[in-house]
Amino acid sequence: MPRESMPREMAIPEELISLRMSIDNIDAALVYLLAERFKCTRMVGTLKASSGLPAADPTREVEQVARLRRLAEAANLDPVFAEKFLKFITEEVIRHHNAVRS
Amino acid sequence: MPRESMPREMAIPEELISLRMSIDNIDAALVYLLAERFKCTRMVGTLKASSGLPAADPTREVEQVARLRRLAEAANLDPVFAEKFLKFITEEVIRHHNAVRS
Repeated sequence: MPRESMPREMAIPEELISLRMSIDNIDAALVYLLAERFKCTRMVGTLKASSGLPAADPTREVEQVARLRRLAEAANLDPVFAEKFLKFITEEVIRHHNAVRS
Repeated sequence: MPRESMPREMAIPEELISLRMSIDNIDAALVYLLAERFKCTRMVGTLKASSGLPAADPTREVEQVARLRRLAEAANLDPVFAEKFLKFITEEVIRHHNAVRS
């Protein structure tokens, strides 16, 4: 790794500013996609509750994990992280579903 | 699966199939966006390490949380969840940064 330091006046290098702008753009896209995903899962929750279907579907969940891991590998994202991510989102979905049923 | 081939109580409503397809599409988009975000944060990590900048930037982090909460409100996403989400992603970023520095 190069050891030469940045000049002191360049506290925030241009490259860092540019990367942060990209991260901020991606975060905005993630927030809007997550909002859309929860809109879908709320509809799933309402549909399941109204049609007497069980909230959990283990077969679907196994398929989702396997698919997400494949997608993560294709995208060069750690599949273990992708699985953790799905679990994190699903915990929120379950919280919503319970709120619909209570 | 064709409806006639399964018992009535096992049938998955068309609306549920459609919603699951939307969720799967959104998940693919999320995976690719997350891959791109980690690509950016890895570059940030390398840049910080090579230029002697500290890994953490509390001012930036406070701004990111505030911005994400505002975006979440605009997108009708729970701002508390949005903040939890950023924390979840950031923990993975820190894991990557530590790997670069070790």
